[in-house]
Amino acid sequence: MLELTVDLGDRSYPIFIGSGTLSDASKLTPRIRAKQVAIVTNETIAPLYLDKLKSLLNDFDVIDFDVIDIVLPDGEAFKNLQTLEAVFDGLLQARHNRTTTLIALGGGVVGDMAGFAAACYQRGVEFIQIPTTVLSQVDSSVGGKTGVNHPLGKNMIGAFHQPNAVIIDTDLLATLPDRELSAGIAEIIKYGLICDPEFYAWLQANIDKLMARDTDALVYAIHRSCADKAKVVAEDEKESGIRAILNLGHTFGHAIETHLGYGEWLHGEAVATGMVMAAELSCRLGDIAQDQVEQIKVLLQQANLPVLPPEGMTPDDFLSIMAVDKKVLDSRLRLVLLEQVGKAVVTSEFDRSKLDEMLAEMCVC
Amino acid sequence: MLELTVDLGDRSYPIFIGSGTLSDASKLTPRIRAKQVAIVTNETIAPLYLDKLKSLLNDFDVIDFDVIDIVLPDGEAFKNLQTLEAVFDGLLQARHNRTTTLIALGGGVVGDMAGFAAACYQRGVEFIQIPTTVLSQVDSSVGGKTGVNHPLGKNMIGAFHQPNAVIIDTDLLATLPDRELSAGIAEIIKYGLICDPEFYAWLQANIDKLMARDTDALVYAIHRSCADKAKVVAEDEKESGIRAILNLGHTFGHAIETHLGYGEWLHGEAVATGMVMAAELSCRLGDIAQDQVEQIKVLLQQANLPVLPPEGMTPDDFLSIMAVDKKVLDSRLRLVLLEQVGKAVVTSEFDRSKLDEMLAEMCVC
Repeated sequence: MLELTVDLGDRSYPIFIGSGTLSDASKLTPRIRAKQVAIVTNETIAPLYLDKLKSLLNDFDVIDFDVIDIVLPDGEAFKNLQTLEAVFDGLLQARHNRTTTLIALGGGVVGDMAGFAAACYQRGVEFIQIPTTVLSQVDSSVGGKTGVNHPLGKNMIGAFHQPNAVIIDTDLLATLPDRELSAGIAEIIKYGLICDPEFYAWLQANIDKLMARDTDALVYAIHRSCADKAKVVAEDEKESGIRAILNLGHTFGHAIETHLGYGEWLHGEAVATGMVMAAELSCRLGDIAQDQVEQIKVLLQQANLPVLPPEGMTPDDFLSIMAVDKKVLDSRLRLVLLEQVGKAVVTSEFDRSKLDEMLAEMCVC
Repeated sequence: MLELTVDLGDRSYPIFIGSGTLSDASKLTPRIRAKQVAIVTNETIAPLYLDKLKSLLNDFDVIDFDVIDIVLPDGEAFKNLQTLEAVFDGLLQARHNRTTTLIALGGGVVGDMAGFAAACYQRGVEFIQIPTTVLSQVDSSVGGKTGVNHPLGKNMIGAFHQPNAVIIDTDLLATLPDRELSAGIAEIIKYGLICDPEFYAWLQANIDKLMARDTDALVYAIHRSCADKAKVVAEDEKESGIRAILNLGHTFGHAIETHLGYGEWLHGEAVATGMVMAAELSCRLGDIAQDQVEQIKVLLQQANLPVLPPEGMTPDDFLSIMAVDKKVLDSRLRLVLLEQVGKAVVTSEFDRSKLDEMLAEMCVC
């Protein structure tokens, strides 16, 4: 088992990564503050792992936990204020108080919603992440971003709220659908592209192992991704600067998700295409070479990821949705671009006509 | 004009108190970060003061503000997630970004909702409070508590989010209904009771002036209340200890509000009765004398405030609602009681039978 610490002063927390970590109560129970525990999960994950987690809590004989579970519908389409209210309903019906601990057992949607519920319930309670998808293991479980979507924009309502601990058990990936495995690998590739050229090279050499769910390869790639992300987040917790590089591909990707309606494309799929778009623009701006763009596309395609926007989506669709994106500051469009393969930058200083060119070329109407 | 600072390190902010402060753009505009401004107000306040505030922003000729307004329905009954969504709708439709500033123009409900919307919109934007009721001027505009109600409990969903500034113009109280003036005075009396015996004596001597809306008396009482609250909040921003004394009367009061449905009794009215209940219990516990309880009742009655629970509300109604109150820690009921008139304490160490006795005596079924 590997361990790393997200270094955020008095909000620092550990991440445990390995095969079988969820069978080890010693990682979980010391991080539960009092007796009340609310497991937030979804309809897909509940039949697979809820009993396992409950019995882990029951087996621990020092504390007699008072455990409830709140089972949400599955999918990004339910990541909204209405579903969030169901979490509050469950907590209040069970009379959970300020010392309760929420445990997010699920993918990114469950983690974002349980984390936001924890941020808001009685103005803030503690929570623990047990992410069950590659994407949530490498992305949403690290860094404290929580929230829900609004019909007019993704993640528009939320909070920064750090978990007490993140427990990543790669055994849980056995039941992950192939499409979701790929979506998670998109985010893993992102870390190589934005800040870790050595890891990018490792990914080019080992993408087949990851796709075959080789345990060692998964543990290595997840640990390295979390370490990369933890480093960036420790530098800039509230995203006032460098943290924004984690959004490589996300501005374009969010536009795709908003345009299609949440849940049509997986987040990682949208990010994959978004990263290609960012790379294509970086190439037009003279920062990376065309063959490097092609290599990025090859790697993403080896992970069965899309590299073109959805059919029918126009440049105007992108520009109109992107105008309200959180990365727009004072009405200027800011994008994450590649200065090199392995080094991203955030900038609003780019030749706008190159953006239009790229969009015109990549949008297949 | 009086000014004081709420001392919270890098989240410190000024409060300006006086007659005509809202005619003085120099207090407001330097605290607006960028161009976008969203005024959140309600149907009652909008026709009275919205234009005044807008023209103040327009007159300021250095910055060309982009101002929208979001007008909510009036009343505690609308302080919920559904109404909150209307604020997000307005912000997103107008494409407000992370640098927007929300201005809460209204009473406590508007302040709590606008503040919570600011805490959550794009994971946190800045906001300014312009409270228009006595209650919000002395209570909800100081201290950073924001949030909405849930059918099962008041203020159960929220965040700590400090404003950039609070601008209190006592001229705005000219249009405040008498019942709301009284409700605000309940909270003013609370500061005397919990931490300021000298102020309590001043209130006994000057209650008639306050009820007659004498400007000097109002400015003095509001400033002293804000200063008392600011001192407590600076000691304990997140309510891990001493801050809880601000909740004198609130545990019983919230139970009354929850039992009746939000909006039947005004918050200050429920707190007034709650303070009498806390005082009666403190008396039974031997901490204050019966004639001190009677003096508190006289003062509240001079302010036209209720001193008995609503008819038909039983001891069991209180106990059942209070069990889920935020001040319950690990299932033990904690209450704010009076050690002296002018000194409150928070405790779960009290003779429970005295609570039952007090409830049995005060509940008129």
